[in-house]
Order: sequence, then C-alpha cells, then structure tokens
Amino acid sequence: MELRIGVIGMGAIGREHGKRLMEKITGCTVTAVADINVEGAAKFAEQYGAKVYQEGEDLINDSNVDAVVVTSWDEAHAKYVLASIAAGKYVFCEKPLATKIEECEAILEAEEKFGKRIVQVGFMRRYDPDYVALKEIIKSGKIGQPMMVHACHRNMTHASNMTSEMSIKNSGIHEIDVLRWLLDDDYVEGQVILPRQSRISAEEGLQDPQIMMLRTTEGIAIDVEISQSSGYGYDIQCEVVGDLGTARLPDPSSVVTRTDCSCAFGVMPGWETRFIDAYNIEFQKWVNEVKADCITGPSSWDGYVACVTAHTLGEARVEGGVKPIITKECPEFYK
Amino acid sequence: MELRIGVIGMGAIGREHGKRLMEKITGCTVTAVADINVEGAAKFAEQYGAKVYQEGEDLINDSNVDAVVVTSWDEAHAKYVLASIAAGKYVFCEKPLATKIEECEAILEAEEKFGKRIVQVGFMRRYDPDYVALKEIIKSGKIGQPMMVHACHRNMTHASNMTSEMSIKNSGIHEIDVLRWLLDDDYVEGQVILPRQSRISAEEGLQDPQIMMLRTTEGIAIDVEISQSSGYGYDIQCEVVGDLGTARLPDPSSVVTRTDCSCAFGVMPGWETRFIDAYNIEFQKWVNEVKADCITGPSSWDGYVACVTAHTLGEARVEGGVKPIITKECPEFYK
Amino acid sequence: MELRIGVIGMGAIGREHGKRLMEKITGCTVTAVADINVEGAAKFAEQYGAKVYQEGEDLINDSNVDAVVVTSWDEAHAKYVLASIAAGKYVFCEKPLATKIEECEAILEAEEKFGKRIVQVGFMRRYDPDYVALKEIIKSGKIGQPMMVHACHRNMTHASNMTSEMSIKNSGIHEIDVLRWLLDDDYVEGQVILPRQSRISAEEGLQDPQIMMLRTTEGIAIDVEISQSSGYGYDIQCEVVGDLGTARLPDPSSVVTRTDCSCAFGVMPGWETRFIDAYNIEFQKWVNEVKADCITGPSSWDGYVACVTAHTLGEARVEGGVKPIITKECPEFYK
Amino acid sequence: MELRIGVIGMGAIGREHGKRLMEKITGCTVTAVADINVEGAAKFAEQYGAKVYQEGEDLINDSNVDAVVVTSWDEAHAKYVLASIAAGKYVFCEKPLATKIEECEAILEAEEKFGKRIVQVGFMRRYDPDYVALKEIIKSGKIGQPMMVHACHRNMTHASNMTSEMSIKNSGIHEIDVLRWLLDDDYVEGQVILPRQSRISAEEGLQDPQIMMLRTTEGIAIDVEISQSSGYGYDIQCEVVGDLGTARLPDPSSVVTRTDCSCAFGVMPGWETRFIDAYNIEFQKWVNEVKADCITGPSSWDGYVACVTAHTLGEARVEGGVKPIITKECPEFYK
Repeated sequence: MELRIGVIGMGAIGREHGKRLMEKITGCTVTAVADINVEGAAKFAEQYGAKVYQEGEDLINDSNVDAVVVTSWDEAHAKYVLASIAAGKYVFCEKPLATKIEECEAILEAEEKFGKRIVQVGFMRRYDPDYVALKEIIKSGKIGQPMMVHACHRNMTHASNMTSEMSIKNSGIHEIDVLRWLLDDDYVEGQVILPRQSRISAEEGLQDPQIMMLRTTEGIAIDVEISQSSGYGYDIQCEVVGDLGTARLPDPSSVVTRTDCSCAFGVMPGWETRFIDAYNIEFQKWVNEVKADCITGPSSWDGYVACVTAHTLGEARVEGGVKPIITKECPEFYK
Repeated sequence: MELRIGVIGMGAIGREHGKRLMEKITGCTVTAVADINVEGAAKFAEQYGAKVYQEGEDLINDSNVDAVVVTSWDEAHAKYVLASIAAGKYVFCEKPLATKIEECEAILEAEEKFGKRIVQVGFMRRYDPDYVALKEIIKSGKIGQPMMVHACHRNMTHASNMTSEMSIKNSGIHEIDVLRWLLDDDYVEGQVILPRQSRISAEEGLQDPQIMMLRTTEGIAIDVEISQSSGYGYDIQCEVVGDLGTARLPDPSSVVTRTDCSCAFGVMPGWETRFIDAYNIEFQKWVNEVKADCITGPSSWDGYVACVTAHTLGEARVEGGVKPIITKECPEFYK
Repeated sequence: MELRIGVIGMGAIGREHGKRLMEKITGCTVTAVADINVEGAAKFAEQYGAKVYQEGEDLINDSNVDAVVVTSWDEAHAKYVLASIAAGKYVFCEKPLATKIEECEAILEAEEKFGKRIVQVGFMRRYDPDYVALKEIIKSGKIGQPMMVHACHRNMTHASNMTSEMSIKNSGIHEIDVLRWLLDDDYVEGQVILPRQSRISAEEGLQDPQIMMLRTTEGIAIDVEISQSSGYGYDIQCEVVGDLGTARLPDPSSVVTRTDCSCAFGVMPGWETRFIDAYNIEFQKWVNEVKADCITGPSSWDGYVACVTAHTLGEARVEGGVKPIITKECPEFYK
Repeated sequence: MELRIGVIGMGAIGREHGKRLMEKITGCTVTAVADINVEGAAKFAEQYGAKVYQEGEDLINDSNVDAVVVTSWDEAHAKYVLASIAAGKYVFCEKPLATKIEECEAILEAEEKFGKRIVQVGFMRRYDPDYVALKEIIKSGKIGQPMMVHACHRNMTHASNMTSEMSIKNSGIHEIDVLRWLLDDDYVEGQVILPRQSRISAEEGLQDPQIMMLRTTEGIAIDVEISQSSGYGYDIQCEVVGDLGTARLPDPSSVVTRTDCSCAFGVMPGWETRFIDAYNIEFQKWVNEVKADCITGPSSWDGYVACVTAHTLGEARVEGGVKPIITKECPEFYK
C-alpha cells in the first residue's frame, strides 16, 4: 500500500521534492499539493493527478493524505508542522524547522505531548554517502580522537535575496547540523570571523564570506567558511582532524582531462546535483520508516538546536566576540 | 499503471534485479519469477507477492506479465529472448545476449521480422554517469580526435568458475560494448596479449591477466587489460587519448584519510557497488521507455557485435596474431 | 673565487648546513666552524678541512672567513649577528633572528647604522618552488583578491623539548613569515584558539594543537593550525581563498600505489626532506648574492616582524582574546 | 681537488650541461669545450674560463682534461667515446651511446679490453627520485610480482626534425632503458602498434603516436605510448601492475587551483624542467664516482641493449608483427 503524501509549498524546492516522490521514491504517491499561488501548484497536480489546495491546513486534514511534506517559505514552517502534529500525521519539514526559537520550542512541546516522534527535519546531508562514510571512519577510531574540523560551504554566486544574516541561518545551518551529527557532540560556544569581503558580495552590502567558529563540549574546535560568492563553483569541504590522523570528504567524482598544460576535473556550478543522492536516500528512508511507523531521521530537537546555534552565531556576527550557545536540556523523549 | 515484469532466473543477479525493480524503480512491479530451482525463487516470490514458475516459457506467456527480464544462466539467454519476441513482449536480457553467434543472429532475424525493437541487452555501463560524462567530453571536441584508449578491468579475485575464455567473454565483454559506444565506432581487428600470469590465477591454470588489443574503423588503437585477480580491488579505468588532450574516468569518490605516513582513499572490493547507479538508471529508463513503447538502450545488434568481437578475441587468444573482426552488415532496422 | 664561510653552532642543523655548503652549493667553502662543544665541531672540521673555534666571536674575526652562518641555539643568535655586523661581514642567521624583540631592534639599528643590508634570516620556505608558484598565481589575479588563508603545519611527533610557547615561536614562526610574504601584506591583529588536546601531547602538558588566527591590513583572515603531534606525518598545507577562486600547495609528489582496497601515496615522516630543495636554493642564492655584494633574502626587518607577531600570539594564547600586532614603522632602509 | 671536465659539442644540451657542471655540481670545473662551430663554444668558454677546441679529439688529449662529456650530435658519439677510452679517460656520453649497433659493439670491446668501466651513458631517468621510489616499491614486494607495465611518453609538440624512426630511437629509448632498469629484466621481443595519427603530426607525414610493445624474459608485457604531439603538455606516465597491486609515477607536484568550475593543476609544457633534479643527481654522482675511480651508472652494455632494442622496434614498425630482440650474451665484465 502506497503512502499518500501531501506537499505544502510548490515553489522550486516543493516541485522538485514532489517530482522526486513521484518518480524516484517507491512506495508512495503525492495525492495533494498546496500553495497560496494555486496556479503554480495546479500544473504539478495536473501532471501527477494530485488534488490542489490553497491552504496548507486543508491539505493536512485531507483524509487522503497520510503524511505531510512542508516546503513552504521558512516563516510558515512552524505553523504547518504544528498543524500536522495536531492532526497526528507524520510531517517532513524542510530546514529550518522554524525561523524563531520559540516556534521550535512550541513544536518540541507539541510533539512530546503527542507522545511519539512524528516530525523530521530536512537535513539531507546526514544521508550523503560521503558524510556517512566520514562518520564511520571517525567512529572506527582510525584517526583517533577528533580535535578539530576545518570545513567550508561555498556557493558560486549568492542568491538574489541573500543577506548577511541568512548566510548563516540558511546556508550555515546545514553545516551546524551535519557537524554536530558527524561528531556526535554538542556546541558550547561560537564566534564569527569576518574576513575581507568578496568584491561581488560587497557591491550589494553583503558580509561575505563569514567564518563560523564553534566549540563542542569535548573541546573540538570547528571553523567553517561560508561563502556565498566563491566565484568558481559550489564546493563543500570537510576535514576532521584527529590525534592519529585526518579524514576528509572527497570531491564528487568527475572526469579528469588533460588539455592546455592543465590536468583538471569539474567542480559543480550549483547545489542541485551535489546532494541528489542524499535527497533520494533521505526520502526513500522516510517513506519506508513512516510506513513502518518509526522514524529515525533528524528530529525536532535537531531542528531546535540548529536554530539556537544559528541565532547565537547571528548575534556573535553583529556584536563580535565569543558567545555561549545555550539550549534547554534535552528531554528523554529525544535521546 | 505499473509495468508488470517477470524475471527468469533467480540466482544472485536475478534476485538483485528483482529487488531493485521492487524497491528502487518506480512505475513497475515484479508479478512473476521463474527458476528451475523453484525453492530459491519461492522465497523472493513470497516476500514480494509474485507468482512462481519453473519454466521461463510459462512465465513469458503469463498474461499478467507485460515485460520480461532474463537473468538465467548465459546458455539459456537466447531461448528466452526468442520466446519473448514470439510472445511480442519487451525483454531485457542480461549480457551476454547469447553465448553463440548463431543464436544472436537468430534473435536479430526474429526481432527484425517482428518489426519493432523489443530486445534490450544489459550493458549497464552505458548508463554510468562517469562514462556518460566521458562520452560527452569526447563529443565536445575538447580532447580532439580520439587516437587511443588505455583501459583496464580488474576484479579483486576471480570467481571460482572463471576460465581463460570467460575472462574475455564475461568480463571483457563489458569493455567491448562500452568502448564501441564511447567512441561511436566499430572494431575491425583484434589481438590478445598474454602477460606473465598472476601467481594466484596460475595456480588454477587460468590465463590471467590478458590484454585485449582492438582497432576501430577510424584506426583508434585500444588496449584493455583484463585481470581476474588484481589482488587489491575492483577497479575500472579508462583513458581516451585524443590529439588535443586526454580524458579519463575518475575513481569513484571515497573519503580521503591521512594516517601512518600515508594519504589514501578506498578502492572497492567488488563490482556490486561500483555500478549501482548505472543499474538503477538503466532499469528506470527501460521501464519508462517500455511504458512509452519506444526503447533506446543497447540493442540486439549491440549484443551481436559484442558476441562476435568476444569470439574473435577468443580465437586470437588461442591462435595468436591479429584477427579481423567480421560482422554482418548492420541492417537499417538497427541504425 | 670561492666564498669562505664560517658556521657557528655545529648541532644537527649546523652540521647539515655545513655539509650542504660543502657538497651541494657551488662557489663556496666552509673554512671555519665554532661550537662550545669543540669535539662535535672537530669531526666536521676534520672531514672538510675547516678550522675549529670554541667561541663564535673568534670565528667571526678570522680573516679567512668572508661570511658567517649562525646555527647556534636560538638565545645566542642575536649576539653573533651583532658581532658579524660589527665585523662588517655578511651573516645568514637561522630563524628566529632573536628570541627577544629588543634584540631584533638592536640588530635593525646596527644594520641600518652599518648602512647596507648584510643580515639574512633563514626563512627557507620563501624559496620552496611550490610556495613560489603559489605566490605567482596569487599575483596573476587568477583567483581574484585574497580574502582568507587556511593553512596547517603538522609535525608527526613533537620534539622532546617542545613547549606550548615554542609551538608558535618555533614552528608557527615559519607560517608567520611565509604567509606575510605570500600575501605581501602585514598583520594587524591575532588570536589563538586552543582545541581539544592531542592525547599524546596532553600527557606532557603540551597545549597542542593550537590555531593561530591572524588578520592583515587588507582584512585577510588567516587560520593556521599548528600541530606538534599529528600522529601521521609531517604535513604543510596552505590554501589561499580569493574572490574568484582558490589556490593551494600541492602534496609533495610521491609514488601512488593500489593495494589492499586502498589507493595511497606517502606522506613524509619528518621535515628533513620536505624543504631540501628550498634550503639548497636559499643557500645557493645567498652565496651568489653575497659574492655579488647585494642580498635580497628575508631581512632583519622580516625577522623582527615575525618575532613581534609570535610574541603577540604568545600573549594571546595565555590571555585569550584578540590582540593588536604592533610593530615600529618600517624604515625606508628596509623597503 | 676538482675534476677537470671537457665537454664535446656545445649545442643546446652541451651548453646546458656545461652550465650545470659549473653552477650546480660541486667538485668539478669545465676546463675545455669543443665544437666544430668554434664561435658557439667560445661564448661559453669566455664566461667560464675554459679552453676552446674545434676537434673533440684534441680536447680529449688535453692534459688539463681529466674526464670527458660527449654532447655532440648523435652520429659522432661513438668516435669520441672510443677516443676517450683510448686516452684512458672517463667519458660520460649523452644517449644514445651510438646510432649503429656495430659502433656500440666496438665500444664494448674497447672498454672490456681497457679493463675497467669508464663509459657512462646519459640515461638520467634512473636518477629521477620518483622512478627510484617506484623501483624501491617494486623491490619491496608490496605490489607482488610485476606482470605488466603501462607507460607513456608524451611531448607537447614534435621537434621540427622529428621522424617516425626517431620517435622510438630518440624519445622511446629513454623508456626502453628505464623500464629495463626498473624491472631488472631483459627484453625478448617487441612489436609496434600504429594508432590513428595525430592530425598535427600527420600533416608532416610523421607516424605519431606509436605504441611500443615489449616482452621481458619473465613474460612481463609492456606497452609504452610514444606521442610527439600530445597537444597538451609534456607528460611521462608509468604504471607497474603486480599480482598484488599497482604502483605508478606521480604527477610532478604543482599548485592546485579552483576556478571557473574546475579544479586543476599544471602540466609542464616541455621536458626541460621535468628531469632537472635527475640531471643534477646524475652528474653529481658521476663526478663523485669518477673522483673515487669507480662508476656505477648506466654502462656501455646498457647503451648497447637500448640500441639493439630500438633498432628491432624500428624494424617492427616498418615490417609489422612481433620481432625477437637478440643481443650478444652479456660479458661477465658488465654484470
């Protein structure tokens, strides 16, 4: 029996996930889509035979919808997640879980009250085979005890609506979550270094690049360069330094050419292709787990911690200096 | 509406493809499986709710089977393909299309008589993203006119039933097909070089490694090392040398570690993981195309040419010297 | 006519440089050596036919010594350099120029008073072909305007006399000088991050690793990991991030093997071999330039700036926070 | 006491070696040079204070010449080597030792009669640190028993006087010697494959590329691509395949850039820089060994074997098929 999914928010990412669920993921079907802009949603609905809603809440309450995927704009994430919990339906929410800490807290409370984990956050990097392999190597002890992480997240050119704040809250949040998961450790303090600006970003008043500095409870020191205008490509790098050795993400495999006195391989222009496998694995696993009534992916708690961390770094960027990262104590429910 | 597929031959590769069709490929379902060893097939059938046949022919004629996948032992490929054509059903046959040239010819004749391409051969490498990218680079003209190919196919340890003859007909055949496709060219002659033997292979009287030397109509000189006992891993390498530059397959991406005075990344132990993406893409495309009633994958003609080439190289291995590779003229039907 | 050189300090590095001057560098000869431990010096002197002194000052005043190389222990560097200036002889001083800032200032004053540059400091990395190539690429504009540097200096196992302070003043000082030269920029502030300790270093109370954070007048943000116990090898990495692209030092070339499911190349165990070419180029150029009476290598000023920077970072390590890096104004004489 | 060297032949390579001996190699000086074109030689002689001869024989008999370097045109190599033997002086002859097999044989005879090895051939690759490391890895047993070598020698653009014959006798001869040394094995047969021609080479009637196929007494199968017009750079590749693994030459280290959706490192345009270290090591060792009266470098026998092999491959290129490579039995004197 196929899982009947409703997708709220049919912008670029919503359409992409909808198409993915229909064409790449087995065991599910998209039965409803919702978007304030009904026309955009209608085209998709027609192609795949789904029902169209204007209001997300109506979609959530459709009895032909077993589970919900939230890909609306960030500010509306919380309300749809809360409505899904209220309806007792599994909900997959694209990152961030919410834009405000209090919203995250409300979700934690509602889910705990509901009594079962039914919220999953779209931190797809945890499903990327290279990150998974990196985590296995760390756990194997091969590189000893992790002491440092040197990472970078580089976009080729910044999105037109990018701001200095979003650079951390939107791009950096992926790093915040995946490194916490990778190290199986929590953050205690953070700081933001502001290097010389990219000339292209500077034109638009964008503080870019930024270096997020984080420290974990074990004392692991993390530096993550976030660049919105690398100028050369989309590039995700991560090196974990242990006291016996290091391990780093590989570059995605790409044909190697020798021409014009140069040996070269391609760097991707955008994020679209880099994490395709991760997205597919993430959704296939989510569908399988929802059908088995037991999900294991990134939780509301993970979404909350990422939100708190990003907010703290946001303050550190503006005010300077090192800021403590303070979360509530993690409830038993989420351990 | 889902494509209902019957799988003939439920050995390792049959079970794997069956599972793939059920769990990874959308738009299809396995409704029937056949194997002389009914018990092996029964377990799969039970898990996925498929009907079990002892005879492939009965499966082919089941009205709940829209299309057939042949994963039986090599010697039976031809008869099931012919029966599928007779039944007017699309058939996907694992390589090789047949073990005898005359069988391939009979298939060509039957398919042409049927009047529509309905046979596809499982040369999955054509769907591997790295090979596809390599072909695009060649076509782009970036490396100029291809003059040579240096390739190798290395298994870590030879299968227990491996023979000197199979080394070309079973492993080498992948290279024979994919290089012909990559260069968009045909072979005119071949030769086999027999290097010093691997000590492990020599113990069992296996002539291993072997170097297949091929020449195309354009004069492109190809050398492909086929090793059944590389001793270190499963490794597929391919470098195309043009008169402006070279292009080569990348190593599959793998975490890079620095430990013990060494910087290293992993090489796969076996073929199982190397071409997973290629298999998934191949079958998804086949299912989609069968449903659209127009297939574009490797044809009977490709299977026939590979068979003739492998046979010629087999003779060259035994008799020495350079042998012409002679096929029938390619019918319009297959162009 | 050969340049007659006297070497003061015949410990490991002194003997190595002495041997280098005799066997690798053309146009010079070592005519005298000095060491408080006369016996250690005597062996070298006998082999190469040099005179032995107990006191460095006597060597400096030997009329058969045209130029002086100082490889004594760090604390004595300044006095031998000052004595060489007083004698009007070219002097090559291994890094650091001096251990105290005031000593560096005294040398600057004495040299300027002498009226000609005759002091060179042994920052050999400036002569390393890879660093030179990296600098050329930066200057070419290919990677745009430099915004950040991510670097690391990793020793395999810490020297027995290593201290938390020396980690910056002795190892880190190479990075301090070479990055300033590479970027052609000066430092304005610095900070030291103290990550989780290496278990091996922690046993001896050594704060290791440390991350030196520097900012230049142009705002370039630099992070340099200094590890005394990497556990896996001697490894020098440097990535310069510009607003059009990045450039990084290559790994030293090393045979690539494929064995045991791994593709690997060697990482050097120690510093001895990594910069051999740099040392040879440095000394050959120094000998040639001394004979031409015009030296262009790292100056007293460079030695002074490195000393001030290292001291400031030393304070930052102990006191925490960001410290301004304040030097005297650079005299015309050194521009 | 310095070794006094005379250089015969002051073309490009002669001037380069002369300069090397004066500026890079310790323990020697160039006291005389000879060239039919006295003017070309005079400039060098003036700069370095050497005597000029028109006739190589006169230089050889100069009592101020202790040892001879032959860098004349290939056809004159043999006569100067024979004259040096007659004069009882150590002689370093650039490759090839001679252009005719009989000349090589005459040299072997003369040297054996003289009773001591005094001839060395300029196969500098044996001194390249990467080839040396490759040989050590083979000898270590890490990759098991060598079974195959895949190699290539690619020039960027062919020299204006290049011919199809010279491609093997001049470029290929380096591979012939270094692979024989690397494997510590002798050749028994050879073949030449003629791939599709490079369009640039074809314009001038040059058969290019060519693939030299060699087999050793142990059965090791070697393929070496020789390209005079790679179109992209000077590139020397060598992979040795053993029955436990493989080992290959690294690319020379070169700064890695990321720009324009590409990660790249430089490939050298010409041979001039690739083997600089090898040339310096080769000559320094030769000077040291001549002074110690015991040379160990590539011998007349090595020069003879390379000459026979190149001639046999030359015939194979013209006549086709596999040719036996037949040398005299190696005298005790050369073992």
